Amino acid sequence: MDKLALCEAHNVPLTPITFLKRASECYPNRTSIIYGQSRFTWPQTYDRCCRLASSLLTLNITRNDVVSILASNVPAMYEMHFGVPMTGAVLNPINTRLDAKTIAIILRHAQPKMLFVDHEFAHLAREVLRLLPFDDSQPHPLIIFIDEIGSPRKHSSEELDYEGLIRRGDLTLSSSASMFRVHDENDPISLNYTSGTTADPKGVVVSHRGAYLSALSSIIGWEMGISLVYLWTLPMFHANGWTHTWSVAASGGTNVCLRHVTAPEIYKNIDLHGVTHMSCVPTVFRILLEGRRNDGSDKSRPIQVLTGGSPPPAGLLEKVQRIGFQVMHGYGLTEATGSVLFCEWQDEWNRLPEHQQMQLKARQGVRNITVEDVDVKNTKTQKSVPRDGKTMGEIVIKGNSVMKGYLRNPKATSESFKHGWLNTGDIGVIHPDGHVEIKDRSKDIIISGGENISSIEVERVLYGHLKVLEAAVVAMPHPLWGETPCAFVVLKKRETNKGRGEEELVTTERDLIDYCRENMPHFMCPRKVVFCQDLPRNSNGKILKSKLRDTAKALVVDEVNAGYKEVHRHGVSHVSSRL
Amino acid sequence: MDKLALCEAHNVPLTPITFLKRASECYPNRTSIIYGQSRFTWPQTYDRCCRLASSLLTLNITRNDVVSILASNVPAMYEMHFGVPMTGAVLNPINTRLDAKTIAIILRHAQPKMLFVDHEFAHLAREVLRLLPFDDSQPHPLIIFIDEIGSPRKHSSEELDYEGLIRRGDLTLSSSASMFRVHDENDPISLNYTSGTTADPKGVVVSHRGAYLSALSSIIGWEMGISLVYLWTLPMFHANGWTHTWSVAASGGTNVCLRHVTAPEIYKNIDLHGVTHMSCVPTVFRILLEGRRNDGSDKSRPIQVLTGGSPPPAGLLEKVQRIGFQVMHGYGLTEATGSVLFCEWQDEWNRLPEHQQMQLKARQGVRNITVEDVDVKNTKTQKSVPRDGKTMGEIVIKGNSVMKGYLRNPKATSESFKHGWLNTGDIGVIHPDGHVEIKDRSKDIIISGGENISSIEVERVLYGHLKVLEAAVVAMPHPLWGETPCAFVVLKKRETNKGRGEEELVTTERDLIDYCRENMPHFMCPRKVVFCQDLPRNSNGKILKSKLRDTAKALVVDEVNAGYKEVHRHGVSHVSSRL
Repeated sequence: MDKLALCEAHNVPLTPITFLKRASECYPNRTSIIYGQSRFTWPQTYDRCCRLASSLLTLNITRNDVVSILASNVPAMYEMHFGVPMTGAVLNPINTRLDAKTIAIILRHAQPKMLFVDHEFAHLAREVLRLLPFDDSQPHPLIIFIDEIGSPRKHSSEELDYEGLIRRGDLTLSSSASMFRVHDENDPISLNYTSGTTADPKGVVVSHRGAYLSALSSIIGWEMGISLVYLWTLPMFHANGWTHTWSVAASGGTNVCLRHVTAPEIYKNIDLHGVTHMSCVPTVFRILLEGRRNDGSDKSRPIQVLTGGSPPPAGLLEKVQRIGFQVMHGYGLTEATGSVLFCEWQDEWNRLPEHQQMQLKARQGVRNITVEDVDVKNTKTQKSVPRDGKTMGEIVIKGNSVMKGYLRNPKATSESFKHGWLNTGDIGVIHPDGHVEIKDRSKDIIISGGENISSIEVERVLYGHLKVLEAAVVAMPHPLWGETPCAFVVLKKRETNKGRGEEELVTTERDLIDYCRENMPHFMCPRKVVFCQDLPRNSNGKILKSKLRDTAKALVVDEVNAGYKEVHRHGVSHVSSRL
Repeated sequence: MDKLALCEAHNVPLTPITFLKRASECYPNRTSIIYGQSRFTWPQTYDRCCRLASSLLTLNITRNDVVSILASNVPAMYEMHFGVPMTGAVLNPINTRLDAKTIAIILRHAQPKMLFVDHEFAHLAREVLRLLPFDDSQPHPLIIFIDEIGSPRKHSSEELDYEGLIRRGDLTLSSSASMFRVHDENDPISLNYTSGTTADPKGVVVSHRGAYLSALSSIIGWEMGISLVYLWTLPMFHANGWTHTWSVAASGGTNVCLRHVTAPEIYKNIDLHGVTHMSCVPTVFRILLEGRRNDGSDKSRPIQVLTGGSPPPAGLLEKVQRIGFQVMHGYGLTEATGSVLFCEWQDEWNRLPEHQQMQLKARQGVRNITVEDVDVKNTKTQKSVPRDGKTMGEIVIKGNSVMKGYLRNPKATSESFKHGWLNTGDIGVIHPDGHVEIKDRSKDIIISGGENISSIEVERVLYGHLKVLEAAVVAMPHPLWGETPCAFVVLKKRETNKGRGEEELVTTERDLIDYCRENMPHFMCPRKVVFCQDLPRNSNGKILKSKLRDTAKALVVDEVNAGYKEVHRHGVSHVSSRL
């Protein structure tokens, strides 16, 4: 058996770039990208990516070089997910919502040879470049401007623009075969910086093999099918759009690109192009709910929505489902190259009442088919917790899609890979049916009198209250119990009678705390409720619990004094009532 | 970038064995196998496979050892697809329809350490062993009997039986982790002998990596979904059931095992267990068509059928679809570890008339997502043929699922891998829409006056005739044109009025030839039609065209003499009429 050597006919590196070539050959008539009035077919997209790769090679881009991009979900952003790695280089999509200072930190660390800049962010890019040192040790990257398709700006003879690179791409000299510079599937394909709420952002290095397998497992786990129309509300800079950039090419589906994620844009594109799938962070649910016209036309063919990030509360899922979106909840992280768990629907759940179904749906679910293993371990003993849905531990992951490591950060890399697993820092349980449920980020757990309280569980109950739009729960110091939960709540609005504006629904802290006491053990109930207009979020839309914790630290549980007081602090207005 | 070394958290070999562990943990309540009155859950199946592996290790089975099995589609056959490779050994499923002599040739070549024998084939196995030399150079394999589940026979103290191995498996001593002996994903998982119509069977060596990727791509291309109920009509010994053995575990679906493929058994199991998917060779269509009761109950939820082997004629597809089976046509070969092409449905086909849809469906389709490349090449120049749907060439394949090679047959291996591709010996075209269509096996092409005639195309027209049940077309010598097509036809039967039996529908050679002349270029029309009761087939149900060619060689085109004659030759009765 050992005499059979590997040969060219079967020893092929796994890389998602092959999905594009296949789509162009197997689905030559299908639309690859729709963006406003622009449309491309898969052969056109393949051709453009090959031309881009050819131009990059001419500009001396080679294996392991970093090519950064600062862009919205425009066609160029999609094309660069293929054109850049074709040359052996590494794509570095940067979060456009970051400030210039943070982007400068990323560029100083990533050391890109080129930076592609969407015209929308030209001003931001100039600010960033001013912050970068300009010396021989790290020369400025070559800047390429991406103009709006169909309305190019004038460029000086020195300035390079994206469409110019595409035009100049030479397919005759460098056939697609010779442009394919991926020889080792473990080579990096993308460099994705984490949002870094506490320290400098870390550069997650993703491999071709990991991206390939992750893209395939999303097709299977989310049942993306072989003719999907995918609406891009999730930024592609967000872990390569959870690797769906590559999944859509694998499926031969259609990408509907959006520059701005607004309710009118979303609903217009859904209606125009027959969108079947979209993925988004739960923040987008609020946009969907608030922007919906009431024509009730979509229930017959619900749009499949994959969501991740913070666990969506059952109540929210229920509401979104009522207006025609079938939500599947997943769990992933940049360090695992997209999705890791999918809350796959189980047939026996069909017999349960709707609200219970939504609770099951809000769990993170079972591991993707290409993820080798996911376990929940006691952080002290490193033993697996019992599958009882109660005992908490840290979620750990093993599999080919786990990152290669953090770029130029051996300390963070080895901490992350302790004990032979990727340690996520997320605290969860495993239910008897095998579904994993996240209880909290390890740093968000509230420890009250020695008891672990999952902030997410308290939030889930609060979301069940009729007047609550959003809720976030953090630890607040308590003289007796050490910590106790403090809830930050945004109330729902309703249109005023004359349709001239909106007014907040009214409730009291007492009312909400009473509601919690009816629906969960008393020790878990928030002892303070802070009403706010908005919750603080990071650039990815994640709620910044660290900020809320700061606010909560300044509060004191006043169990003796009655009365109402109004406080403004950190831009959060709150009204507290006596317990 | 190069400093990021591979580590345990992400450097995991790709092997379909992991699908089983995942199914047992993620779908603990789902049924894995149904077989008559027996049922297993996924944790039970995982437990049984681990026990089997543990017993094999005790019997000194180790990496690259061959373990053969001669069995129907019983649960043991399914379990051995996991339990054997867990130990690092190589599964060798043997076609049970072969005669003792051929099986002896296979065993002599494969040199298995063990042979598992389903009780149904005990007699055959004894005959095989008598044919094998019994000496030190190649000792007889250790025999393990597989009894019918629930009705074990008495065994002597020396005889080993399958359930005994399972019972004795020691999970405490050898935890599942230490039993996992797959360290290199390019190691062999299965040894599958081709049917070998011309020479001795060749042993195709399949890798873990190839099997893993092939199993995943079937889930995507055939849209198997995440809760399928799969009926086993395709023998698992046939290229590991086109790798669906592993796909079903990956999907967490249910295997419905069948010992005998008969119409009553098929329809009973469909009704009892809510079958959603099955795969089969086209021969099974005849069973489905003839055995169907006319209750018309299944059209609302058609059963997804994947078929391969000889291309199903459009007429046959149409008929099977009418009784509730939604057929997808695929193309694969043992040398490529299961399916390579799937005729994926294209939305624009919905607008076409049904008969035209069926013609499109009868094409072989586009390559699976994990197949790197499929091309059609001119056999002389090795250049790709134009995508015009007309120019014929040899179908060649490249991808990770292509076999490692033929065991102990370097000559056949290197011939097979000439020019860096797997050369299939199948002649086909590529249509402008990217779909590949097989025109013939290279040896089945009929060359008439220098023109290539695809026997399959002539068969397709014949199948369109109302009275034709089956047709096979081969070359017949022709004094002027070199070769000319000769058709062998089985006519449909209808129940006699009194329901006491069946009688063949009646037509004439002239009628069929006239029909052909109306529906295809004249040079392609058969000049002879031979009516038969049955077509000769090999053990996999493939029509033996070599046999028909022998018959045709003995015939002479008689373009002058009129009159009817009746001939019996090679068990084939034919009536020929004057042209």
